[in-house]
Amino acid sequence: MMDVYISLLHFPVYDKNRRIVTTAVTNMDVHDIARAARTYGLAGYYLVTPIREQQEMVRQLVEHWTGGAGLEYNPVRGDAFGLVRVVPELDAVRSEVQRRTGSVPLVVGTSARRGSRCLPVATLRRRIVEEAGSMVLVLGTGWGLEQGLIDSLDEVLEPIEGRGGYNHLSVRSAASIILDRLLGTGR
Amino acid sequence: MMDVYISLLHFPVYDKNRRIVTTAVTNMDVHDIARAARTYGLAGYYLVTPIREQQEMVRQLVEHWTGGAGLEYNPVRGDAFGLVRVVPELDAVRSEVQRRTGSVPLVVGTSARRGSRCLPVATLRRRIVEEAGSMVLVLGTGWGLEQGLIDSLDEVLEPIEGRGGYNHLSVRSAASIILDRLLGTGR
Repeated sequence: MMDVYISLLHFPVYDKNRRIVTTAVTNMDVHDIARAARTYGLAGYYLVTPIREQQEMVRQLVEHWTGGAGLEYNPVRGDAFGLVRVVPELDAVRSEVQRRTGSVPLVVGTSARRGSRCLPVATLRRRIVEEAGSMVLVLGTGWGLEQGLIDSLDEVLEPIEGRGGYNHLSVRSAASIILDRLLGTGR
Repeated sequence: MMDVYISLLHFPVYDKNRRIVTTAVTNMDVHDIARAARTYGLAGYYLVTPIREQQEMVRQLVEHWTGGAGLEYNPVRGDAFGLVRVVPELDAVRSEVQRRTGSVPLVVGTSARRGSRCLPVATLRRRIVEEAGSMVLVLGTGWGLEQGLIDSLDEVLEPIEGRGGYNHLSVRSAASIILDRLLGTGR
């Protein structure tokens, strides 16, 4: 069974006019995805932002919930926040996961659009169970991961499809659904 | 195929000390669940709160995104917000869905805990496709729906299980995962 990590990129991502931007870290993205990561047994959750002040904000948030007044207020939240790390770029996720697991991780991008590469969920689900090593899922904030970055990844997961053409899920919803599809039991 | 609705209750729900409370409407709950509802082809999304000021706040939010400056800023968001309604209690959801669809809806509760009733996802997924009429999924904010209310519902869906015993998902994540399990394609 692979060690699975998730990472949320705040750069390089698109805005609604398809300009490449750095988005702000959203409090709810930290909470919701940490709780989903903990629920599905992930080994870690990386917030990726090049902005130092935002990195510091995430560290303070993690400290609050894992050791401060937040832990006393709600211990189960601290359990989830224990998975959260913050790094400046995706390469730092790669190297830190390699350091932690001793293996080069498989890095898998996600997109709301169907591109030239499209790894079926069922295939990845099987690989997670059957293979050793580690994997990093990469999600983008804003209007999604920049195409050059997507092209640099090992694989790209097929998009989530609902009913009809609309697929403008929040990244919190998308992360939760992807983890359930890849790791959920009792389905 | 059933018409599927989702409803989010702010009363009667538990707080962390298992007292029955009314929670505040959270902006992100409106956005994220509206977008997921739209993605999975739902017929409507009911915010349920007895507090008049909160009902008014939701109506203003919906107006902003479906007709105001929000629509111009982001038209796809307006598409999702068109599903949002606000009512004071679950009975109003029942009667409004009956009025809209001409049938008494099947009302299905959700819980993070496994109780005495536990409808398998696969069974409900099949019923949605095979039966006519309508269904309302009921989710609770805070620490979950009050037990008396759960007991009054037609069915209770089996809880979401990840890996290990931790299941403290946000209601936004839980709603997204449940919709994907019940209505997702390409799985």
